[in-house]
Amino acid sequence: MGPGPINADPRVLRAMSAQLVGQYDPWMTRTMDETQALYREVFVTQNEQTLLVDGTSRAGIEAALVSLIEPGDRVLVPIFGRFGHLLREIAERCGAEVHVIEVPWGQVFTPEQIEEAVVRVQPKLLTIVHGDTSTTMAQPLEGIGDICARNGVLFYTDVTASLGGNTFRVDELGLDAVTAGLQKCLAGPSGSAPATFSERAVEVIRSRKSVEAGIRSEGDAVNAHPIRSNYFDLAMIFDYWGPQRLNHHTEATSMLYCARECARILVDEGLDQAVARHELHGRAMLHGLRGLGLEVFGDVEHRMNNVTAVFIPEGIDGDGARAAMLNDFGIEIGTSFGPLHGKVWRVGTMGYNARKDTVLTTLAALESVLRRGGRTVTGGGGVGAAYEVYEEAGLS
Amino acid sequence: MGPGPINADPRVLRAMSAQLVGQYDPWMTRTMDETQALYREVFVTQNEQTLLVDGTSRAGIEAALVSLIEPGDRVLVPIFGRFGHLLREIAERCGAEVHVIEVPWGQVFTPEQIEEAVVRVQPKLLTIVHGDTSTTMAQPLEGIGDICARNGVLFYTDVTASLGGNTFRVDELGLDAVTAGLQKCLAGPSGSAPATFSERAVEVIRSRKSVEAGIRSEGDAVNAHPIRSNYFDLAMIFDYWGPQRLNHHTEATSMLYCARECARILVDEGLDQAVARHELHGRAMLHGLRGLGLEVFGDVEHRMNNVTAVFIPEGIDGDGARAAMLNDFGIEIGTSFGPLHGKVWRVGTMGYNARKDTVLTTLAALESVLRRGGRTVTGGGGVGAAYEVYEEAGLS
Repeated sequence: MGPGPINADPRVLRAMSAQLVGQYDPWMTRTMDETQALYREVFVTQNEQTLLVDGTSRAGIEAALVSLIEPGDRVLVPIFGRFGHLLREIAERCGAEVHVIEVPWGQVFTPEQIEEAVVRVQPKLLTIVHGDTSTTMAQPLEGIGDICARNGVLFYTDVTASLGGNTFRVDELGLDAVTAGLQKCLAGPSGSAPATFSERAVEVIRSRKSVEAGIRSEGDAVNAHPIRSNYFDLAMIFDYWGPQRLNHHTEATSMLYCARECARILVDEGLDQAVARHELHGRAMLHGLRGLGLEVFGDVEHRMNNVTAVFIPEGIDGDGARAAMLNDFGIEIGTSFGPLHGKVWRVGTMGYNARKDTVLTTLAALESVLRRGGRTVTGGGGVGAAYEVYEEAGLS
Repeated sequence: MGPGPINADPRVLRAMSAQLVGQYDPWMTRTMDETQALYREVFVTQNEQTLLVDGTSRAGIEAALVSLIEPGDRVLVPIFGRFGHLLREIAERCGAEVHVIEVPWGQVFTPEQIEEAVVRVQPKLLTIVHGDTSTTMAQPLEGIGDICARNGVLFYTDVTASLGGNTFRVDELGLDAVTAGLQKCLAGPSGSAPATFSERAVEVIRSRKSVEAGIRSEGDAVNAHPIRSNYFDLAMIFDYWGPQRLNHHTEATSMLYCARECARILVDEGLDQAVARHELHGRAMLHGLRGLGLEVFGDVEHRMNNVTAVFIPEGIDGDGARAAMLNDFGIEIGTSFGPLHGKVWRVGTMGYNARKDTVLTTLAALESVLRRGGRTVTGGGGVGAAYEVYEEAGLS
């Protein structure tokens, strides 16, 4: 019940035990096509270029940034947590001229703050995290696509922490590039990064295309300033996933099966239903934690449905309590990074673990741990508050 | 029965269906430690920095090169097939001044050819593929470590295609950096890249260390010219796998289980036994293919044990025959890339598929396909020749 990775859905685990086939086997390429179609549903997009980057969610981020950014490009990064710093860091390593704006951890930006910076900086690319797990905040993205369109700016976001548990529709938001991961609300393991790219992003990326010497045919593109990475060269990755099937990496077959199953589970449930489930169990957890006398961190109105941060109460050894939760109750909860390290606990309710039983068990366990740590806790205060949420929702 | 990926060992597939735990769960970090120890056995090395790069084997290559190469560094790449071109391409994208030497596809280099180039170019880094699947050749690496040591050159090789099926001992060869993949003789899927680095390589990489802003503590390294990639920054990846457990990516848990099981299977069998098995079944396949009247491509003395290339005989539609193998017999064989595309078939005998039954079935099927394609083939010529090899080896 930490901020992710969490338990995977057993359907996902079983999907990975299917036997492999060759990478150009018609069944394999059909599976790739099917996975692309499923992620178009998950992302709510018509983008042809919707595919997996083979690596963890961070690999998806780097593929998007290194393929879009040419050295010297201006990039704007609004930072509201650790993963904003990561976007900055990756953009810098891509050779970008990076401009940042920051709000304190626990807050999000207003559209006006972002517009002011866009107009001032005139970047080629705006990169912002949708949900930053480090602070549990979700940045509202509504209206930012318009700001970018008006200013001729490419609009990128990473939705690893939020996808599946919070409303997110790529085309409606006017996004040009989006990356994600499986290890949060998608109920899978880390190791595959679903991503999608608008026509405008694809054009920028394709203009940088360069086919490798070992598989180059006459007339194939050779570029004097190719994308700085071969592995993350999306122009080549598009051609591998596209009808050309031009060999690039060898697709990670088991992780492909896995990513497909994650998407199937989400689409079977229905995107809106999945968001509603995360909202309900997240709210039950929030009220439950408050019922234990804990203070919620940050701007509660803007927290993600799927993770809640609370201040570690005075007098309690935060790491000791987490160890007791894990060793005595088999339940993991997290702390956070940087300025929040050792200051907060983060409790997730996501993917396969966004359930009533997991919420109630976690609250009951945490009550015991707090009491043994010397806190005065109302007996059943956490579980009771969560029950109230469930009863109100008719889930009792 | 292609050049890989091939069928995975069922033990590997089952290992991936184990439930996940959090990334700092003691069981998780123990599993990471255990995996490192297993790959030290697989690579026959004492290197502390032996770990997995989360991505396909190409990700391992890029991590090694981008972490070792600073823009402007001289790199020597002896090329004897497609994957030599890949090393050149990745080194170029890392900003290296790349020098190449080439032999025709189907041949390998003599140590003298490599020494001449090392002395002439005086590179910082020599990068060479051990086994290049595109040509089926294995470059002998004996003596090259000494040449590099004498000239103060870092020595890197990729063993994706050869590891587990051909004798390979990292420390004995004096290698500084080695990367691999699971989808060949290790009997797993693509998606995780085992890698190992000598003290000398670690020193070069650590000197370029830069800790990301989002998790930086006082006194942590900040480098004005950091490694160009964040995802492939081995200095950070070392700290994630090391006792510091400094967060970088979120380890791809299911692929970790998978990589661990691949190594366990190999260590259980014994490295020498596994090589002997690949040698035997590869030889049976070679003789069987000749028994079908097919001409073997390239310098047979230097082919890998685990894959054999034969010229597509005149009058036979190479792709049509491959389609018949797959659709009628359920057996995949491959063609190759670049100058060999459509000229040769590549038949693998690797990992879980390096077995007598798979060899004999493939030869029987290929006989039928050749005959239906209009070739005159001696009845049982392929299977008979393979049987002879098995009988000689006492495996009948």
